[in-house]
Amino acid sequence: MTKPASAAAALATATPSPSSDSALLAQRLVDAYRAVRDETERRAAPLSPEDQLIQSMPDASPAKWHRAHTTWFFEQFLLGEHVAGYTPFHPDYAYLFNSYYVSAGPRHARHQRGHLTRPSADEVTAYRRHVDAEVVKFFQSAGEEKLQALVPLVEVGLNHEQQHQELMYTDILHAFAQNPIPPAYDPAWRFPASNGSTEQWVTLNEGIHTVGHADDSFHFDNEKPAHRALVGPVKLAKNLVTNAEWLAFMKDGGYATATLWLMDGFATVSNEGWQAPGHWRETGGEWKIMTLGGLQPIDPSAPVCHVSYYEADAFARWAGKHLPTEMEWEVAARAGLLNDAYGIVWQWTRSSYSPYPGYRAIEGALGEYNGKFMVNQLVLRGSSLATPPGHSRVTYRNFFYPHHRWQFTGLRLADYA
Amino acid sequence: MTKPASAAAALATATPSPSSDSALLAQRLVDAYRAVRDETERRAAPLSPEDQLIQSMPDASPAKWHRAHTTWFFEQFLLGEHVAGYTPFHPDYAYLFNSYYVSAGPRHARHQRGHLTRPSADEVTAYRRHVDAEVVKFFQSAGEEKLQALVPLVEVGLNHEQQHQELMYTDILHAFAQNPIPPAYDPAWRFPASNGSTEQWVTLNEGIHTVGHADDSFHFDNEKPAHRALVGPVKLAKNLVTNAEWLAFMKDGGYATATLWLMDGFATVSNEGWQAPGHWRETGGEWKIMTLGGLQPIDPSAPVCHVSYYEADAFARWAGKHLPTEMEWEVAARAGLLNDAYGIVWQWTRSSYSPYPGYRAIEGALGEYNGKFMVNQLVLRGSSLATPPGHSRVTYRNFFYPHHRWQFTGLRLADYA
Amino acid sequence: MTKPASAAAALATATPSPSSDSALLAQRLVDAYRAVRDETERRAAPLSPEDQLIQSMPDASPAKWHRAHTTWFFEQFLLGEHVAGYTPFHPDYAYLFNSYYVSAGPRHARHQRGHLTRPSADEVTAYRRHVDAEVVKFFQSAGEEKLQALVPLVEVGLNHEQQHQELMYTDILHAFAQNPIPPAYDPAWRFPASNGSTEQWVTLNEGIHTVGHADDSFHFDNEKPAHRALVGPVKLAKNLVTNAEWLAFMKDGGYATATLWLMDGFATVSNEGWQAPGHWRETGGEWKIMTLGGLQPIDPSAPVCHVSYYEADAFARWAGKHLPTEMEWEVAARAGLLNDAYGIVWQWTRSSYSPYPGYRAIEGALGEYNGKFMVNQLVLRGSSLATPPGHSRVTYRNFFYPHHRWQFTGLRLADYA
Amino acid sequence: MTKPASAAAALATATPSPSSDSALLAQRLVDAYRAVRDETERRAAPLSPEDQLIQSMPDASPAKWHRAHTTWFFEQFLLGEHVAGYTPFHPDYAYLFNSYYVSAGPRHARHQRGHLTRPSADEVTAYRRHVDAEVVKFFQSAGEEKLQALVPLVEVGLNHEQQHQELMYTDILHAFAQNPIPPAYDPAWRFPASNGSTEQWVTLNEGIHTVGHADDSFHFDNEKPAHRALVGPVKLAKNLVTNAEWLAFMKDGGYATATLWLMDGFATVSNEGWQAPGHWRETGGEWKIMTLGGLQPIDPSAPVCHVSYYEADAFARWAGKHLPTEMEWEVAARAGLLNDAYGIVWQWTRSSYSPYPGYRAIEGALGEYNGKFMVNQLVLRGSSLATPPGHSRVTYRNFFYPHHRWQFTGLRLADYA
Repeated sequence: MTKPASAAAALATATPSPSSDSALLAQRLVDAYRAVRDETERRAAPLSPEDQLIQSMPDASPAKWHRAHTTWFFEQFLLGEHVAGYTPFHPDYAYLFNSYYVSAGPRHARHQRGHLTRPSADEVTAYRRHVDAEVVKFFQSAGEEKLQALVPLVEVGLNHEQQHQELMYTDILHAFAQNPIPPAYDPAWRFPASNGSTEQWVTLNEGIHTVGHADDSFHFDNEKPAHRALVGPVKLAKNLVTNAEWLAFMKDGGYATATLWLMDGFATVSNEGWQAPGHWRETGGEWKIMTLGGLQPIDPSAPVCHVSYYEADAFARWAGKHLPTEMEWEVAARAGLLNDAYGIVWQWTRSSYSPYPGYRAIEGALGEYNGKFMVNQLVLRGSSLATPPGHSRVTYRNFFYPHHRWQFTGLRLADYA
Repeated sequence: MTKPASAAAALATATPSPSSDSALLAQRLVDAYRAVRDETERRAAPLSPEDQLIQSMPDASPAKWHRAHTTWFFEQFLLGEHVAGYTPFHPDYAYLFNSYYVSAGPRHARHQRGHLTRPSADEVTAYRRHVDAEVVKFFQSAGEEKLQALVPLVEVGLNHEQQHQELMYTDILHAFAQNPIPPAYDPAWRFPASNGSTEQWVTLNEGIHTVGHADDSFHFDNEKPAHRALVGPVKLAKNLVTNAEWLAFMKDGGYATATLWLMDGFATVSNEGWQAPGHWRETGGEWKIMTLGGLQPIDPSAPVCHVSYYEADAFARWAGKHLPTEMEWEVAARAGLLNDAYGIVWQWTRSSYSPYPGYRAIEGALGEYNGKFMVNQLVLRGSSLATPPGHSRVTYRNFFYPHHRWQFTGLRLADYA
Repeated sequence: MTKPASAAAALATATPSPSSDSALLAQRLVDAYRAVRDETERRAAPLSPEDQLIQSMPDASPAKWHRAHTTWFFEQFLLGEHVAGYTPFHPDYAYLFNSYYVSAGPRHARHQRGHLTRPSADEVTAYRRHVDAEVVKFFQSAGEEKLQALVPLVEVGLNHEQQHQELMYTDILHAFAQNPIPPAYDPAWRFPASNGSTEQWVTLNEGIHTVGHADDSFHFDNEKPAHRALVGPVKLAKNLVTNAEWLAFMKDGGYATATLWLMDGFATVSNEGWQAPGHWRETGGEWKIMTLGGLQPIDPSAPVCHVSYYEADAFARWAGKHLPTEMEWEVAARAGLLNDAYGIVWQWTRSSYSPYPGYRAIEGALGEYNGKFMVNQLVLRGSSLATPPGHSRVTYRNFFYPHHRWQFTGLRLADYA
Repeated sequence: MTKPASAAAALATATPSPSSDSALLAQRLVDAYRAVRDETERRAAPLSPEDQLIQSMPDASPAKWHRAHTTWFFEQFLLGEHVAGYTPFHPDYAYLFNSYYVSAGPRHARHQRGHLTRPSADEVTAYRRHVDAEVVKFFQSAGEEKLQALVPLVEVGLNHEQQHQELMYTDILHAFAQNPIPPAYDPAWRFPASNGSTEQWVTLNEGIHTVGHADDSFHFDNEKPAHRALVGPVKLAKNLVTNAEWLAFMKDGGYATATLWLMDGFATVSNEGWQAPGHWRETGGEWKIMTLGGLQPIDPSAPVCHVSYYEADAFARWAGKHLPTEMEWEVAARAGLLNDAYGIVWQWTRSSYSPYPGYRAIEGALGEYNGKFMVNQLVLRGSSLATPPGHSRVTYRNFFYPHHRWQFTGLRLADYA
């Protein structure tokens, strides 16, 4: 697997050695910080003030909110806790832009984020600039010892912001997809090319492997502890399931055949009236898909995208196959056996999102980052076209509810025969 | 009663006589049209693009939508039906901006109006300008006979737009009231002064009166047919119920005493957790009210505002009084016996919104304007501070559901003792 | 109009004169009491213990509950308040069997009445017997002065029980109608014959009439005060709308034509999937109706039954007519102009259920009997096949929500042309 | 572990060898069948007809329905498919009493099972007798070859009925717990004694074990395929968590401390107002628990019962421990290391209910038995006081949603420190 280096990743690899001097570390922090913060603004740039306000469903958030919330994260956990005498930019922003950190105080109701016409997008820009200036100033003046101690926190803040960068894409795409006159985020955008679309299988023989994040480079707490796991024998599909295969499933009555589905899945299909993946629209007897480039024809050779776990599971059953576990995926990906493991679609596994053996959430508010979601969700592995460069990792555990499909989500199959 | 003349009213009084020539009528139509259309834009002017997008509850609509929908009304019913070869400004706007006219074709779901980040506020401005130019051109070229025949339709369109002007105020106020940092629509705005706040009663002896709209001047179809009604004996309060009286009701436990309430009313109070009128906030032990001027102290002598029918009814019972019927209100108002009948708060009556004897909705799509709402709602009489000048009328029947309180709604009492 | 005398009606006419001695009054009370109480048991007799438990929707109540609640009414308001030292039969029954009297203390949630498998039907029988014995003993020992004072309360108790007798029929019919194998309450039961089914109109000229209950004979408080009203000119249908007419409405696409309906009505039709009156089932292309006699063919000449207000209103619009007001109905019925005013179906009027001028609920818990329902409901006049003999009255105001149709409800038309 | 032998288990162990003659096998089948069928009736015996009708929530089913559905299972899959010319007892019972087998045809809506006042409990008894007679007749006449082939199906039918026997207890207890006057199923019933309540830990070192059902004795398909798994190192609590420990959690504010809970769990706690395990009631400042013996005091030394997964997980976090995986439980139980593994409370594991590697549902309608539930639920291991004797198995996988707590569910802890 080849992954482009990113600012955050660069910072991670640059975790200071004893010999690095303070100025160097400060500069690295400033560079990494600016690179990530700039990417957020780059993603927001094509959006009008109205586009930045919309919250098209409770699961999504406005782009303006993403921009402000990621800023609050640095203000709350870095400036607020580590800069003596720091006064928040606005006394009510902590209330408005805290997401779900109970330990960090009361907060605005999630489903009402789209109601905040004010502060305006411009005011949020001012908020970002203020906090950026304060953070840079802090980096440049704090001294090596303090900075070294805070590198992990800065890394969390940057990776956190990268996660919201991905959500900015998925959330605005969902919003645009609700519009009867579908807008294009970027008319020139095209779905990324995949590296293979034929049926090929890679084999994992039974073996004990260490899975999870083993060293001290950046990771989220849910990737720990690294632990030994028995994996295999199993075969994994080298390639992702394609639109052509999905159309065959549809043509074969897949969405209407109850016995192909988990019971909760078929209830969802029935209640929601699903007949195709998310963001697909039938016009004039032809299926199209709503993308960041607007409404586009379905490319049969491209990986299927915007399918829920329920759909992925039904497809696998229809195909006489299964979904892999997250451990199987990790072992195969680590061995470099998988095409398109990263950068196109997150891949559903059949592993529920649950704690690794002996997992403990970290202390304090950041302990709420991952651990409290470990029920009712499924793990997805890899990364997607919306994932910022360098944010991918072989041990990375993404997670969504089984009915969710507004993310860039697809699948690859497993075979135990 | 003294009511300022408005453009629409002027047009109404100016209904052309046989001697008026075509140019004069065309000019009157242009003037009336421009006056009303300008007022809409004047009301939208203080709103940012985000403010114009928000739909803070399904009952409310975005300001941008109000601006577009009123434009569609002229495009659909005037240009579309009476200008040969007229091409709509945009092929999808009829779908987006039809409100509830089943006869005029399919339409966007009401509760999703806040999802239309695009067309932008500027695009809606362009839409308004285009239609305005076409309408004015049509007025100036259609000829007297055709214009005379269309005066009633133009009047409906202008009065329709005036109704939406009122909603622009009530809807943005509701939206701003949801914001933890309450914005002011106009910081200089103050609640209008009332003409009296002491308890005084005016007496109506039994008598037969003609109620409803009797002549051909502008009116909505629900004001017809004028008919004879037996009214009285009853006494009506000369003045509106005040905040001071309402605070006494609250202090006496009014909101917590089930026996003061209609059963459906108390269920609403309990489910919603109501403890005061709408848009009231308790901060530091003191009640304030969210207004177009921002969050302001309660003025004890001002009429109470933002109360639902349920609350008005409970207050009347607590006071040992009743609410009047709409007929009693009309007879008393016609006789000039009531203070503040117009221009401050709509006044709940205990009359359900139902058809007058022999009422028939007019033919065609505009027949859906009023008639299909004649169940489950209560009649309010008078007008409010948000009603455009000249839009008030002694026979005017406003109507809302009994739990609604985001309009500028208050009450005056009746006494049958 | 000819109405059979009933026990309660007999009591009402027997309101004691000064010359009646105590024994005679006591005997009259005992006779009236026993007659009504026996009718309740007669109606329950065909029901199994399971039949008596079922609550097939929140609006309905189990037969066992009706039997216990009417007993509690006498225990609470007669024995509990007027017999010194009376100990309730069971300490928890007041909680279980109070319906909605806030003033009488806390009570079991309405929608959970069907959850009380115990006390059993037999235990409720024992409860009824106990209270009956105590009431009779009280009548026989209380003395004339006390009895005279309590006659109104006893009358309310008996009329209250008669209302529940009607509900026992409508509620069990609803329950049986949910059963895929529809049971018959009484296989020999047949729909009552109507007195006419051709289109005939009776005319009311304009006139002032006294409506409402004028004297002191038994009545509910919502029939007061009698007051003068201007009624007419209008024509009322002499006969009820028939199944044949309703089938014509259905055949003409009535249920699918939005413009025939009130907006709330069409929303209900769409959400509920209504295509015919309540309790109708299509089997093998033929419509049948679920009745107390089981599933039976539709009789074209019989009055239509189980229609909601929404349906009645749509039918009237389709027919180019209206529904009458309750005042029009009362004046015509009082003049003996209407066929089948009583005993077949309650007749929807377009009058909302609201207080007569100057209406005041009576003091105490019984003040909750009628007044607190005076919003969101419509008045029905006459009586139905389920109404106990003698319970009908020309001033009687029944009321239900506009979507309700599990009662025996039909309509007659009005014409203002 | 010592488990009493049951009829079904006896049948299982008696799976016929080639030397058994037909009469012997037939007799074994008859004996096993009668033993299980009789147990169902024994459990229903204390229930009145009303008790047998109630469905106190959609997740529960009426006792009468359990009795009929288990009968339908034999009628549908044994008599209907293997007895030539068999005519169903009643043509509509398949519709009424099919639970969720899409492949077996349409069926009555689950949440309306409590609406079937008829057929009566007695009619269901007649249904059971009819099917029993037919089944026994079939066993006695089918011949050895056919019987041998059908042993697996009979075993499924008997184990299926045993599962419903357990539900009969949990469902009627839930129903009785809703009654303000709580009935006792059996006044003499007492909570079973546990074998230990002190904190003791048993250690599992890392090792590869075969988990799942390895041989051909009776099992459900979800226990297959047996497969190798890496388990340990981990310590498991030898004993179940007790009421005393749970009271300490409550006293420490456990139910009000958001940071102890999964996010979905705390949302449930808040929405439902949970402050204690299910079926607990606080009266006079003291907690009691609703049991099959009626409302009883909490026994501090008894295992806690009626806790959801959310509560079990929060308790474990509060205790600084975890819940075990189902594999850890199975390995420890197989080694005989656990007290009270069976017969008191099912024990939540942190394993989601998902397919074992290569799992395939069996063909046909019975393939819907287990597989389609493999999402959103958690595995419980062991068995409970309501589990029929002999129905327990070390590989048995029970499963419920994380908010469910009307089953007899408790927990034991795991420690990875």
